[in-house]
Amino acid sequence: MGFFSKDIETLDDLFVHTLRDIYYAEKQIEKALPKMIDKATDPKLKAGFEKHLRETAGHIARVEEVFEMHGVTAKQVRCPAIDGILEEADELAGDIADKQVLDAGLIAAAQAVEHYEITRYGTLMAWAKQLGRNDCAAVLEKNLKEEQATDKALTSMAEGSINLQAAE
Amino acid sequence: MGFFSKDIETLDDLFVHTLRDIYYAEKQIEKALPKMIDKATDPKLKAGFEKHLRETAGHIARVEEVFEMHGVTAKQVRCPAIDGILEEADELAGDIADKQVLDAGLIAAAQAVEHYEITRYGTLMAWAKQLGRNDCAAVLEKNLKEEQATDKALTSMAEGSINLQAAE
Repeated sequence: MGFFSKDIETLDDLFVHTLRDIYYAEKQIEKALPKMIDKATDPKLKAGFEKHLRETAGHIARVEEVFEMHGVTAKQVRCPAIDGILEEADELAGDIADKQVLDAGLIAAAQAVEHYEITRYGTLMAWAKQLGRNDCAAVLEKNLKEEQATDKALTSMAEGSINLQAAE
Repeated sequence: MGFFSKDIETLDDLFVHTLRDIYYAEKQIEKALPKMIDKATDPKLKAGFEKHLRETAGHIARVEEVFEMHGVTAKQVRCPAIDGILEEADELAGDIADKQVLDAGLIAAAQAVEHYEITRYGTLMAWAKQLGRNDCAAVLEKNLKEEQATDKALTSMAEGSINLQAAE
């Protein structure tokens, strides 16, 4: 975005900007997940990340659908938030010596990613409704529900076995 | 953290590392909030950010309490996630021309911050319990509850009036 001009003048502009931000974020997550799958040791966690990688491809397709419904170009804007969240995940993983402790760290990192997506999709849904685009809100809600379900599944895995294994 | 050594060997190490990460994050948020207060136009939003600035000082004190209870030094480790989230908030605010649209953008940015804190305190609580430190978990839960309440209050403000004003 511009250094000398303020490009966002309306709520519609802000909606489109934020859609481009989450589009970038989803694509970065799609790149990061294979590395997390490689690093995970627990088979359930590995399978959970693999499932989420497939879902992420679907989220990207839905965001593209919203761009089209709203009549704007599907493009990305760099999102320093997801870059920071993924950089932190990467740094942390490199600092953990024990495989079981690494699994606990990977869950925490993945939940930070999910929470970022949950807040962005929640905001985008609210703005879409305000702009009279309940059709766009309905598509965005599908992504939101899947992110929330992934977050809950990660909590269950952590509290069910992975934190215990990490503490042993 | 080390480039050549893996410093985190146990779940306890990971807990302390993540406590130092949220300690850094809370201090960065404490620095960022006065700028958000300045930029906000809606009096309810301004008052909400002012309340959260006071709460943030309390969160920092509680994190220091947990360091002391757990017998480790209260120190910060750089947290690229919160740096990215705050950088994005700052960039976005600089790109918005209209005051009412800016208020909607500030709420979205603040909710991204809250969600980061919610996920970290949730993780820290789970790890504290796993480590047999229910006393630390109880202190961390107080911060978690306040972050969740702030997130809900921001949603109410957005959906109650600020998104509507931004769309006019």
